[in-house]
Amino acid sequence: MSSPEKRIQELHLTLPPAPKPVAVYKTAVKMGHLLFVSGHGPLKADKTMITGRVGQDLTTEQGKEAARQTGLAILATVRETLGSLDKVKRLLKTYGMVNCTDDFLDQPKVINGFSELMRDVFGEDGVGARSAVGHNSLPGNIAVEIECIFEVEA
Amino acid sequence: MSSPEKRIQELHLTLPPAPKPVAVYKTAVKMGHLLFVSGHGPLKADKTMITGRVGQDLTTEQGKEAARQTGLAILATVRETLGSLDKVKRLLKTYGMVNCTDDFLDQPKVINGFSELMRDVFGEDGVGARSAVGHNSLPGNIAVEIECIFEVEA
Amino acid sequence: MSSPEKRIQELHLTLPPAPKPVAVYKTAVKMGHLLFVSGHGPLKADKTMITGRVGQDLTTEQGKEAARQTGLAILATVRETLGSLDKVKRLLKTYGMVNCTDDFLDQPKVINGFSELMRDVFGEDGVGARSAVGHNSLPGNIAVEIECIFEVEA
Repeated sequence: MSSPEKRIQELHLTLPPAPKPVAVYKTAVKMGHLLFVSGHGPLKADKTMITGRVGQDLTTEQGKEAARQTGLAILATVRETLGSLDKVKRLLKTYGMVNCTDDFLDQPKVINGFSELMRDVFGEDGVGARSAVGHNSLPGNIAVEIECIFEVEA
Repeated sequence: MSSPEKRIQELHLTLPPAPKPVAVYKTAVKMGHLLFVSGHGPLKADKTMITGRVGQDLTTEQGKEAARQTGLAILATVRETLGSLDKVKRLLKTYGMVNCTDDFLDQPKVINGFSELMRDVFGEDGVGARSAVGHNSLPGNIAVEIECIFEVEA
Repeated sequence: MSSPEKRIQELHLTLPPAPKPVAVYKTAVKMGHLLFVSGHGPLKADKTMITGRVGQDLTTEQGKEAARQTGLAILATVRETLGSLDKVKRLLKTYGMVNCTDDFLDQPKVINGFSELMRDVFGEDGVGARSAVGHNSLPGNIAVEIECIFEVEA
């Protein structure tokens, strides 16, 4: 399989600009082989976010698209932090949060939008441990927020 | 104290079948001495899940039982991943999520169902750092979802 | 910049008594260079907690004050665990949970109460990766719950 950076090209993926922190934090922090990535939202190329509550304002499919877009934003952060996505060894763990109604139950399908993207880019190394859960509210009404930990070159 | 595998026997615990991923993730990922365990639900031996909202469909005690069952599912995953529970050094950190009403406030009592099981099996090494919180919705309406990190033999 | 312990003095900060576990867990667990800190609430010097739902019972500013108080409680735990705050190298990752109404969207402003305190005490090393999210319910109706991971001396 191609390197992650080549995969980005082959898949014709367009990463949004690497997001800037909206408060007192860093978008990612590296310690040894671990890269802790902050909670990211579905940032689009035009710098706006996909907002709305899944199960009310957004369908499951639209939520999944938001999770994919969140993945693209995270890739932008990882590339900016490490210099290249080729320094990623694998995705260790994902925590996927869905802004949803109390009766929405398909969080795993939504977060798959992120997880399928990671598998597309990193292959089997892009499939890690994961939780997918519902939240009654997320910052700025973003549809999805995802944080994760990568294993990277030291 | 006996080894964890012996404790399982002494306590007459029955683990459910190790759960299969329901989406694009692995149920656990090992990196060095760290084992990242995915969010698990209260999987029963018959492969069904304990579902319902605590404070509405389930009592605190029933929620606690669901957390204990989630622990049994996690033990099944850890055994399958490592080959034996005896390779666990200790539980480092637990994140316990309770599917509950807005006015339910006893998440720590619920998640104790998991934590007491871990203490039963691993002794004092089964007591780690922990958060216990409420969620408005969890996948498939499971009553409890728990993710955790173990320290294991490299 | 002064050491963290000197900063505590210079800023005239008063830490609450280090909290005791309210259930089956430890308030912090150290493994090598990592210190996993359990979910803490806004414990005050009089040992009561700041309670209430942000967006309903508490304003954003009051929620932020609760997050700062949660930070003081975490500092008390870290000092008790390590013997001194000077053994902290940096804050790696924060997960900040806000007990809030479904339409409250300013979680980052609330959790800044914690993050600004960490920056005041540890300088730039107090700024790590972070997620800030809403929850429909937290234990005992506490306004904020925060867990985090520090890099510490081994």
